[in-house]
Amino acid sequence: METIIGTIAGILTSISMLPQLIKVLKEKEVENISHGTIIVLICGVALWVVYGVLKNEWPIILSNGFSVLVNVTLHVYYHVYKKN
Amino acid sequence: METIIGTIAGILTSISMLPQLIKVLKEKEVENISHGTIIVLICGVALWVVYGVLKNEWPIILSNGFSVLVNVTLHVYYHVYKKN
Repeated sequence: METIIGTIAGILTSISMLPQLIKVLKEKEVENISHGTIIVLICGVALWVVYGVLKNEWPIILSNGFSVLVNVTLHVYYHVYKKN
Repeated sequence: METIIGTIAGILTSISMLPQLIKVLKEKEVENISHGTIIVLICGVALWVVYGVLKNEWPIILSNGFSVLVNVTLHVYYHVYKKN
Protein backbone atom coordinates (compact mmCIF):
# COMPACT_ATOMS: atom_id res chain seq x y z
CA MET A 1 0.00 0.00 0.00
CA GLU A 2 2.76 2.47 0.96
CA THR A 3 4.66 1.43 -2.18
CA ILE A 4 1.68 2.13 -4.46
CA ILE A 5 1.01 5.54 -2.87
CA GLY A 6 4.73 6.42 -2.94
CA THR A 7 4.97 5.41 -6.61
CA ILE A 8 1.94 7.50 -7.63
CA ALA A 9 3.22 10.44 -5.53
CA GLY A 10 6.65 10.15 -7.17
CA ILE A 11 5.21 10.03 -10.68
CA LEU A 12 2.96 13.07 -10.02
CA THR A 13 5.72 15.25 -8.53
CA SER A 14 8.14 14.17 -11.29
CA ILE A 15 5.80 15.09 -14.16
CA SER A 16 4.36 18.18 -12.44
CA MET A 17 6.41 20.74 -14.40
CA LEU A 18 5.55 19.12 -17.76
CA PRO A 19 2.26 21.09 -18.22
CA GLN A 20 4.23 24.29 -17.47
CA LEU A 21 6.85 23.43 -20.11
CA ILE A 22 4.13 22.59 -22.68
CA LYS A 23 2.35 25.91 -21.94
CA VAL A 24 5.60 27.86 -22.42
CA LEU A 25 6.36 26.05 -25.71
CA LYS A 26 2.83 26.80 -26.98
CA GLU A 27 2.44 30.41 -25.82
CA LYS A 28 6.08 31.55 -25.91
CA GLU A 29 5.53 33.77 -22.88
CA VAL A 30 7.26 33.46 -19.50
CA GLU A 31 6.77 36.87 -17.84
CA ASN A 32 4.80 35.57 -14.81
CA ILE A 33 7.00 32.51 -14.22
CA SER A 34 9.52 32.67 -11.37
CA HIS A 35 13.13 32.18 -12.45
CA GLY A 36 14.02 31.46 -8.82
CA THR A 37 11.59 28.55 -8.70
CA ILE A 38 13.16 26.95 -11.79
CA ILE A 39 16.71 27.34 -10.40
CA VAL A 40 15.87 26.02 -6.90
CA LEU A 41 13.99 23.10 -8.49
CA ILE A 42 16.88 22.16 -10.81
CA CYS A 43 19.32 22.20 -7.86
CA GLY A 44 16.90 20.17 -5.72
CA VAL A 45 16.11 17.43 -8.24
CA ALA A 46 19.77 17.23 -9.35
CA LEU A 47 20.73 16.60 -5.69
CA TRP A 48 18.00 13.91 -5.52
CA VAL A 49 19.71 12.22 -8.50
CA VAL A 50 23.04 12.33 -6.60
CA TYR A 51 21.26 10.91 -3.54
CA GLY A 52 19.76 8.13 -5.69
CA VAL A 53 23.19 7.28 -7.14
CA LEU A 54 24.79 7.15 -3.65
CA LYS A 55 21.99 4.91 -2.35
CA ASN A 56 21.81 2.97 -5.65
CA GLU A 57 18.05 3.56 -5.87
CA TRP A 58 16.91 3.50 -9.47
CA PRO A 59 13.36 4.86 -8.96
CA ILE A 60 14.85 8.00 -7.34
CA ILE A 61 17.46 8.36 -10.10
CA LEU A 62 14.96 7.90 -12.96
CA SER A 63 12.11 10.07 -11.63
CA ASN A 64 14.39 12.94 -10.62
CA GLY A 65 16.54 12.54 -13.74
CA PHE A 66 13.35 13.10 -15.74
CA SER A 67 12.60 16.22 -13.64
CA VAL A 68 16.12 17.56 -14.29
CA LEU A 69 15.52 17.20 -18.05
CA VAL A 70 12.11 18.92 -17.93
CA ASN A 71 13.34 21.79 -15.74
CA VAL A 72 16.60 22.38 -17.64
CA THR A 73 14.54 22.53 -20.87
CA LEU A 74 12.11 24.96 -19.17
CA HIS A 75 15.09 27.05 -18.04
CA VAL A 76 16.46 27.24 -21.60
CA TYR A 77 13.08 28.35 -23.00
CA TYR A 78 12.63 30.78 -20.10
CA HIS A 79 15.65 32.67 -21.39
CA VAL A 80 14.65 32.23 -25.06
CA TYR A 81 11.23 33.84 -24.48
CA LYS A 82 12.09 36.28 -21.66
CA LYS A 83 11.64 39.90 -22.75
CA ASN A 84 14.02 42.39 -21.26
CA MET B 1 26.81 11.90 3.45
CA GLU B 2 23.65 10.55 1.79
CA THR B 3 21.60 11.99 4.66
CA ILE B 4 23.08 15.47 4.22
CA ILE B 5 22.52 15.45 0.44
CA GLY B 6 18.99 14.03 0.87
CA THR B 7 18.15 16.69 3.46
CA ILE B 8 19.39 19.56 1.27
CA ALA B 9 17.59 18.07 -1.76
CA GLY B 10 14.37 17.75 0.27
CA ILE B 11 14.57 21.33 1.54
CA LEU B 12 15.22 22.70 -1.98
CA THR B 13 12.37 20.80 -3.66
CA SER B 14 10.02 21.67 -0.76
CA ILE B 15 10.67 25.42 -0.92
CA SER B 16 10.95 25.56 -4.74
CA MET B 17 7.45 26.99 -5.34
CA LEU B 18 7.91 29.72 -2.72
CA PRO B 19 9.59 32.20 -5.15
CA GLN B 20 6.68 31.60 -7.57
CA LEU B 21 4.12 32.34 -4.85
CA ILE B 22 5.99 35.51 -3.80
CA LYS B 23 6.15 36.67 -7.44
CA VAL B 24 2.38 36.13 -7.86
CA LEU B 25 1.60 38.00 -4.62
CA LYS B 26 3.82 40.91 -5.74
CA GLU B 27 2.81 41.18 -9.40
CA LYS B 28 -0.79 39.90 -9.20
CA GLU B 29 -0.45 38.25 -12.63
CA VAL B 30 -0.72 34.54 -13.39
CA GLU B 31 -1.40 34.36 -17.15
CA ASN B 32 1.76 32.37 -18.03
CA ILE B 33 1.52 29.98 -15.09
CA SER B 34 0.23 26.46 -15.77
CA HIS B 35 -2.88 25.56 -13.76
CA GLY B 36 -2.20 21.88 -14.55
CA THR B 37 1.24 22.08 -12.91
CA ILE B 38 -0.28 23.46 -9.68
CA ILE B 39 -2.99 20.76 -9.58
CA VAL B 40 -0.62 17.84 -10.32
CA LEU B 41 1.83 19.21 -7.73
CA ILE B 42 -0.84 19.52 -5.01
CA CYS B 43 -2.00 15.92 -5.65
CA GLY B 44 1.62 14.69 -5.67
CA VAL B 45 2.79 16.37 -2.47
CA ALA B 46 -0.50 15.51 -0.68
CA LEU B 47 0.10 11.83 -1.54
CA TRP B 48 3.66 12.18 -0.20
CA VAL B 49 2.14 13.38 3.10
CA VAL B 50 -0.11 10.27 3.15
CA TYR B 51 2.97 8.13 2.40
CA GLY B 52 4.85 9.82 5.26
CA VAL B 53 1.96 9.20 7.66
CA LEU B 54 1.74 5.51 6.66
CA LYS B 55 5.50 5.08 7.09
CA ASN B 56 5.57 7.34 10.16
CA GLU B 57 8.36 9.44 8.63
CA TRP B 58 8.27 12.99 9.99
CA PRO B 59 10.74 14.59 7.54
CA ILE B 60 8.51 13.46 4.62
CA ILE B 61 5.33 14.66 6.37
CA LEU B 62 6.77 18.07 7.30
CA SER B 63 8.53 18.92 4.02
CA ASN B 64 5.59 17.85 1.85
CA GLY B 65 3.05 19.33 4.25
CA PHE B 66 4.84 22.66 3.76
CA SER B 67 4.64 22.15 -0.04
CA VAL B 68 0.90 21.46 0.20
CA LEU B 69 0.43 24.78 2.04
CA VAL B 70 2.51 26.76 -0.49
CA ASN B 71 0.80 25.19 -3.51
CA VAL B 72 -2.76 25.43 -2.15
CA THR B 73 -2.08 29.13 -1.42
CA LEU B 74 -0.68 29.54 -4.95
CA HIS B 75 -3.79 27.82 -6.33
CA VAL B 76 -6.11 30.21 -4.45
CA TYR B 77 -4.23 33.27 -5.73
CA TYR B 78 -4.11 31.77 -9.24
CA HIS B 79 -7.91 31.99 -9.32
CA VAL B 80 -7.97 35.39 -7.56
CA TYR B 81 -5.71 36.95 -10.21
CA LYS B 82 -6.71 34.91 -13.27
CA LYS B 83 -8.33 37.07 -15.93
CA ASN B 84 -11.07 35.43 -17.99
